[in-house]
Amino acid sequence: MAVYTEVSDQELGRFVARYGLGKLLSYKGIAEGVENTNYAVHTEAGSFILTLYEKRVDANDLPFFLGLMDHLAANGLSCPVPVRDPDGRMIGEIAGRQAAMVTFLEGVWPRQPNVAQCEAVGVALAQLHHAGRGFALTRRNGLGLTDWRALFDRFASHADDIATGMRAVIAAELDHLETHWPKGLPEGVIHADLFQDNVFFLGDRLSGLIDFYFACNDLLAYDVATCLNAWCFDAAHAFDPVKGAALLRGYQSICPLEPAEREHLPLLARGSALRFLLTRAFDWINTPAGALVQRKDPLEYLAKLRFHQTVRSARDYGADA
Amino acid sequence: MAVYTEVSDQELGRFVARYGLGKLLSYKGIAEGVENTNYAVHTEAGSFILTLYEKRVDANDLPFFLGLMDHLAANGLSCPVPVRDPDGRMIGEIAGRQAAMVTFLEGVWPRQPNVAQCEAVGVALAQLHHAGRGFALTRRNGLGLTDWRALFDRFASHADDIATGMRAVIAAELDHLETHWPKGLPEGVIHADLFQDNVFFLGDRLSGLIDFYFACNDLLAYDVATCLNAWCFDAAHAFDPVKGAALLRGYQSICPLEPAEREHLPLLARGSALRFLLTRAFDWINTPAGALVQRKDPLEYLAKLRFHQTVRSARDYGADA
Repeated sequence: MAVYTEVSDQELGRFVARYGLGKLLSYKGIAEGVENTNYAVHTEAGSFILTLYEKRVDANDLPFFLGLMDHLAANGLSCPVPVRDPDGRMIGEIAGRQAAMVTFLEGVWPRQPNVAQCEAVGVALAQLHHAGRGFALTRRNGLGLTDWRALFDRFASHADDIATGMRAVIAAELDHLETHWPKGLPEGVIHADLFQDNVFFLGDRLSGLIDFYFACNDLLAYDVATCLNAWCFDAAHAFDPVKGAALLRGYQSICPLEPAEREHLPLLARGSALRFLLTRAFDWINTPAGALVQRKDPLEYLAKLRFHQTVRSARDYGADA
Repeated sequence: MAVYTEVSDQELGRFVARYGLGKLLSYKGIAEGVENTNYAVHTEAGSFILTLYEKRVDANDLPFFLGLMDHLAANGLSCPVPVRDPDGRMIGEIAGRQAAMVTFLEGVWPRQPNVAQCEAVGVALAQLHHAGRGFALTRRNGLGLTDWRALFDRFASHADDIATGMRAVIAAELDHLETHWPKGLPEGVIHADLFQDNVFFLGDRLSGLIDFYFACNDLLAYDVATCLNAWCFDAAHAFDPVKGAALLRGYQSICPLEPAEREHLPLLARGSALRFLLTRAFDWINTPAGALVQRKDPLEYLAKLRFHQTVRSARDYGADA
């Protein structure tokens, strides 16, 4: 949540002109994005977001991320579209950083999503999975099943500083997931981080999805599980089956879950909860107090993990029998 | 440079609707303003800036600041215009903060202003002084001559930690200014902080002025002196008489300086340099390393002060004979 790199008016003016966007009218550094620097830019051609990729983003991943947005938009998903320079390139350079300019998407993200919005997210996730077919590039999930143990090892000795017993819970869960993780489920491009702040609405109408910087190839139903975690719990971290039913209904209106996906949904939801527990716990321990980036509460995901451990079938999430 | 207060989509949607601005389309926290929280807001009625006033701003000053913008705009100055609610009020409340919505002003502030831009700033400053006449409210300058000694006393014992000899320089300068400060010069509403980041351009055309949160009643020529400090030195803190001449030419094209104003311009420039030296030195000593707010270099204003101490007349700034 910061502007890490300052851009001068003259440099941005040249950049914008080269992209054929007319004259630069204004730009403001915006307090969004933990990893990168973002500016809201107005030009004669309209509104855009300029992103400067800071060092935490692997430059080798940029063709995947930007190409994916381009591919998804071309296949009917509402999302930011990268602007191409005269040579057809989506990745440019400004202020010593790799950078991209994407179209500005109107909409606000819902702080307290309602049931209709949960259903709309399910629809949009299925549209994303559908639109992602045929995308030529691939990217492995850098925060998937095979990465969790190494991440845990980096803070395991401090885990009980956050909550007594957390270390044992995570260790047992890792063993369980590594033993029971499903094979052969449908795979494809997933968003992998479709939290509320990445879904824009105009009223109850979903206007588009943003932030594809965790997107990768993985199990499609794992993305559904992440949305259940992100959208269908209340402020006290209790699961709301009405929202769960709405989200699954929306998703299945376009991409019906296969029997094996339904069967493994509770396990995938445990995995997804563990993934966010791990990264939040790691950041909690490693982010200095008073840092620019606000830490997110890992205990929220410990609670969600524990709930999923009690779930017997997808019906507990609100799926039809 | 931070978002201190988060605003929810629902609360802002209601706020925007009440102001008659149609439906909320988007809002982004922007990394501008040290004292307040600012959002760039799009609604069906256009683009706006929403400012939430944090505790460092005296709520009693808000009618002056917002009324002044309203008055200046009504008198032809290009600046943000506060939006009024159905009861005619410019000051509302959101997220527990006093807040105002002003029109969005297109333009970018020049990181390296050229001579034409310096002349345009002079013109705009004179337009501001002219448009400010007849504004009914008044506000004393809280960082004027009579406030400097008390501010200095708060960090004098640490001044030499910044630069050896700084304490003695400031003490002697304070004595000089308190003895020689002019009386009877024309007074009026001044901007008091017309630095580059508060002046927007579209190319060389000045599109408007922003940030009136230091505005007050004081000597008009003191505002000219501050602009000389802010706009007419190069990166090595050397005065550029070509830019100085341009700024003074622009100002005098609308508001010719009276003989007494010209005579005292070097002294007013010393006072203005001291004012920014004092606040920057105070902040330098009192801002913790790693804070959200970036500290500005006090030595820049020590160098400017020393330059003005050598100036013999307004001609040294580029004024016509």
